Amino acid sequence: MAAAGALLEPWRMIGVAVVGLGGIGRLHARNLAREVPGARLARVVDPITELAEATARDLDVSWSTSYDDALSDPDVAALVIAAPSPLHAELVERGSKAGRHVFCEKPLGLDADLAGRAAASARESGLRLQVGFQRRFDPDFLAAKERIDGGEVGSVRLLRITHRNRRPPHTGDLGPRLGSLFADMTVHDFDTARWLVGEVAEVTAFEAARTAVVVLRFENGALGVVDNTRSAVYGFDCSAEVIGSASTLRVGARQWPVDVERLTADGVVSDPPADHTRRHETAYRDELRHFVECVESGSEPAVGGDDAAAALRLASAAERCVA
Amino acid sequence: MAAAGALLEPWRMIGVAVVGLGGIGRLHARNLAREVPGARLARVVDPITELAEATARDLDVSWSTSYDDALSDPDVAALVIAAPSPLHAELVERGSKAGRHVFCEKPLGLDADLAGRAAASARESGLRLQVGFQRRFDPDFLAAKERIDGGEVGSVRLLRITHRNRRPPHTGDLGPRLGSLFADMTVHDFDTARWLVGEVAEVTAFEAARTAVVVLRFENGALGVVDNTRSAVYGFDCSAEVIGSASTLRVGARQWPVDVERLTADGVVSDPPADHTRRHETAYRDELRHFVECVESGSEPAVGGDDAAAALRLASAAERCVA
Amino acid sequence: MAAAGALLEPWRMIGVAVVGLGGIGRLHARNLAREVPGARLARVVDPITELAEATARDLDVSWSTSYDDALSDPDVAALVIAAPSPLHAELVERGSKAGRHVFCEKPLGLDADLAGRAAASARESGLRLQVGFQRRFDPDFLAAKERIDGGEVGSVRLLRITHRNRRPPHTGDLGPRLGSLFADMTVHDFDTARWLVGEVAEVTAFEAARTAVVVLRFENGALGVVDNTRSAVYGFDCSAEVIGSASTLRVGARQWPVDVERLTADGVVSDPPADHTRRHETAYRDELRHFVECVESGSEPAVGGDDAAAALRLASAAERCVA
Amino acid sequence: MAAAGALLEPWRMIGVAVVGLGGIGRLHARNLAREVPGARLARVVDPITELAEATARDLDVSWSTSYDDALSDPDVAALVIAAPSPLHAELVERGSKAGRHVFCEKPLGLDADLAGRAAASARESGLRLQVGFQRRFDPDFLAAKERIDGGEVGSVRLLRITHRNRRPPHTGDLGPRLGSLFADMTVHDFDTARWLVGEVAEVTAFEAARTAVVVLRFENGALGVVDNTRSAVYGFDCSAEVIGSASTLRVGARQWPVDVERLTADGVVSDPPADHTRRHETAYRDELRHFVECVESGSEPAVGGDDAAAALRLASAAERCVA
Repeated sequence: MAAAGALLEPWRMIGVAVVGLGGIGRLHARNLAREVPGARLARVVDPITELAEATARDLDVSWSTSYDDALSDPDVAALVIAAPSPLHAELVERGSKAGRHVFCEKPLGLDADLAGRAAASARESGLRLQVGFQRRFDPDFLAAKERIDGGEVGSVRLLRITHRNRRPPHTGDLGPRLGSLFADMTVHDFDTARWLVGEVAEVTAFEAARTAVVVLRFENGALGVVDNTRSAVYGFDCSAEVIGSASTLRVGARQWPVDVERLTADGVVSDPPADHTRRHETAYRDELRHFVECVESGSEPAVGGDDAAAALRLASAAERCVA
Repeated sequence: MAAAGALLEPWRMIGVAVVGLGGIGRLHARNLAREVPGARLARVVDPITELAEATARDLDVSWSTSYDDALSDPDVAALVIAAPSPLHAELVERGSKAGRHVFCEKPLGLDADLAGRAAASARESGLRLQVGFQRRFDPDFLAAKERIDGGEVGSVRLLRITHRNRRPPHTGDLGPRLGSLFADMTVHDFDTARWLVGEVAEVTAFEAARTAVVVLRFENGALGVVDNTRSAVYGFDCSAEVIGSASTLRVGARQWPVDVERLTADGVVSDPPADHTRRHETAYRDELRHFVECVESGSEPAVGGDDAAAALRLASAAERCVA
Repeated sequence: MAAAGALLEPWRMIGVAVVGLGGIGRLHARNLAREVPGARLARVVDPITELAEATARDLDVSWSTSYDDALSDPDVAALVIAAPSPLHAELVERGSKAGRHVFCEKPLGLDADLAGRAAASARESGLRLQVGFQRRFDPDFLAAKERIDGGEVGSVRLLRITHRNRRPPHTGDLGPRLGSLFADMTVHDFDTARWLVGEVAEVTAFEAARTAVVVLRFENGALGVVDNTRSAVYGFDCSAEVIGSASTLRVGARQWPVDVERLTADGVVSDPPADHTRRHETAYRDELRHFVECVESGSEPAVGGDDAAAALRLASAAERCVA
Repeated sequence: MAAAGALLEPWRMIGVAVVGLGGIGRLHARNLAREVPGARLARVVDPITELAEATARDLDVSWSTSYDDALSDPDVAALVIAAPSPLHAELVERGSKAGRHVFCEKPLGLDADLAGRAAASARESGLRLQVGFQRRFDPDFLAAKERIDGGEVGSVRLLRITHRNRRPPHTGDLGPRLGSLFADMTVHDFDTARWLVGEVAEVTAFEAARTAVVVLRFENGALGVVDNTRSAVYGFDCSAEVIGSASTLRVGARQWPVDVERLTADGVVSDPPADHTRRHETAYRDELRHFVECVESGSEPAVGGDDAAAALRLASAAERCVA
């Protein structure tokens, strides 16, 4: 039982630096500060001085604006990379070369080859590399995975994934920070597809107005289809269906966390779905717990650099369809 | 109020012959015998003598094994064609030429050009031609259509349709009787897509093991995606999502007609969804009521021969993708 | 298969007079005019001349303002009584004495003794008497009944019924026409309780502001609880739970007939539930079909005068609790 | 933001002893060990040596078999009482007299007068006393409370609470440890009723075979009804409806935490509901966070000794109904 973790003496804990303090970086930092037994948030890094300083003050840790400071800090045994996506692969490679275990936000850069090189670099150094596909730690998706692996679904015929956001993550041109919609959003779905069904042989993508449809043909003969949009006004949506020869699973179809229905003369109303930080609250926590356990035990993370490179190759294939 | 219809004197009613007495033909015959005010089932036709005779006896009407008998029967003002799909266009054309109004089951044959010719033939003769896309009369889809037309959804970004059957409609080789999966199943979805969103500019189809994914690009820029399978073990499924700039509609997501939940130590269980005859019970009835009203009033059916030809052209485009 | 019914020669059909043309009376009349094989609506009766005349014109039948006309009409073999509740028992008794089968709306009067006498009168004359507890013909409740009788629920521990209306059926003082809330609304629930679980040994009732809670103790030791209100602003609600030693059934928990969910930035919205005529559309039809079949075959209706008297005795017991 | 709490120096944290190490006591201990910023689990107490020792070893804290040890431990500023219910009031009073803040599991003993005396004792000593009605910290019930207080429901007409357990908490005779079903289970519902609707003027209770129905009449004229059972084979159930003049709220009607639906040929299956520790996981955590914040800030807990005494008086009234 990990509950005793919080009582570990600080010097027995794994020191972690969080690099990049946007929304998801700060979320990881807060989780490391209190939700991850065995880990100690040692340092936060961001090129924006005010942001680094304010975050460090909130969490009572060291800060700097330079990645090198983290790489040379003897208190830092592991890195959590949450910088802009285009920098991911290089930062991971530098981290591995400096002897640090790395948890890197998805995607692992925007280039599958560089991602593969980063994965190889960590592997060769005997260090852990985990990638932030948090859906692998979502309790509903985990339960579905277990049922599929247990044979309950039979042969998968079709995988259907819906993944939508209320709006683009930032206004302005996202490309430079996030890459294409396929690299930023669909990359989660590519990973889910590989995880639940298997390797993908063929990708065909269609795009229009912040919305995409991606069709997959799996090596085992199954079909897959993903729909994505960045303008679902009702909010974050993340659900899937696995249609098999023996049964069908529907995952995440309810996904409304406040369970209060209002019955009025005009109709029956529920709250819109939770945003991704609330929906995946335990998944964001559990992926870090898993990472720290892997660092402690030396075992391989459930979702590593090669998975990230594979998802990125599928994203590149999708990009080529709409180019 | 149509309720008085059943009290019309027989000679004021429209005499209808049902041609083809498979499952859907017998369903139409039963509906005409008692659920369609203003109509009188006058005759049933099927090449299998025993089937024609037994159905006629059940419903207390005339029967024959020859289409010509129906065409020459002065009691028959309208035809309901439910013969094998490949014959539809020709039977419609012959019916129109013989001066009969026609309700034809979907698809209107397997060839878009022949379908167009059949549509033209009815039009030129000033006769009604309606096609059996019963989903246009489904109360849930109708409510969605009304909301879309009322502007509630805004600009449609994505249309998602799920349409699945528990198994193929017959064992054995379906092609000769039903055409491809696209002509037989997806043709409904093509019609729904045109009805709810508009004309389709581009079709891309994928098929594997009784399962298909079809991606649509609409002329207005929206995307569409249809998933079909003939091996959804849990039963008939027919639902849709319309994702728009202002809101999203989910249609038919509940679709379980027996509203009894069983809570046991092993879980919470509901009945599988209703089959299509039960799910669309009122739609199958209402499409015939609409047809008879159009015949009576001389107005054009809500879904006619040109719609059928358009859906068939999309099915042909899908077939070419997987050829 | 009853579908051929509409084709019966009129003189082979059972002539029915509907007595009392309020909302439910007109509904029964319309159903008899077209939805009930084997029945022929022969006559409508209401003391309000204009109402009787207009209804008769709509449905193309005879009319009168006097019950005696119906009782002496040789075309009338059966009566459907939908007059004000206080008159029911007497009208039934007069009908039976005049040799007519009777379908009587609930409650069978407002006095259990008179109801019992009416039941006895029909029985002694060898005539059918059915009472309008339409819930016995609701497909969901029927499915629950079948599961209970099949042993799936085990021993019932608790029956919970929710039964609510949006508003009182008429403005003004209901008492004279409808009796107490217990006699008018709860009487349905008393009947459901007896049907699903068994005889009731003890009734305790609580009332406040158009709202009531009634607790039952069944002879078999189970408990029951009914909640009623005439001010559920969201609409008609009729659902139940049967909690047993082996499983629990939830009946009618979904009950929203238009299956369109609207997902907006403000939340997820469904239509309010259907009103009772739409919710119980098939039940109102099927209870009349059952009645006519019983008249034809001479078998006893599934819910007769003794059931009505029993429910009324429970309503009286409830009334005494709050007096 | 409380996230920094885990980084507080131990001597700035509030030392807490957990007294009574049954299931709920160990749950509180684990929460205090890692989920409650500002608190430090200082000691665990249970008369069973092995249990106290094992729990202490797991959580790396001191232990003893004597309550007095906790009362005299200078590291212990606050107590969490999770001993058998009959002892609660006395343990609270002794704690207060020893100058300790107390969080006490429900019920606050089995005697309303003793509970009131314990509440007075804490109040007079200027110490915090909070009672473990965790439903007050359930996100769904909190959301409902907010809507009621915001006027959205209008005047409450009826409160309906369902509260069921799969089985009794222990085999054997519960009375000595837990009190009656009303004191052990319904006491939660009495508290919820007072919290959501107001003071209760009248209680009527019915009991049979581990099952109870309790009817409430509120001082404001509304009615309430609670159904409880300790033999709901499908599991823990905790839901409510608030029927008001303006709208109705349904709270906790979904309550299935694993959001995977399995569609098979036999039906649609979901997991049974979560047990109370999983369903109320955040509520059990948040009530302790609230308690510690109240101790830190000197503010009154949201649910204190007087609430506990009031709920206990209602439980006693219910007991008298079935005596």
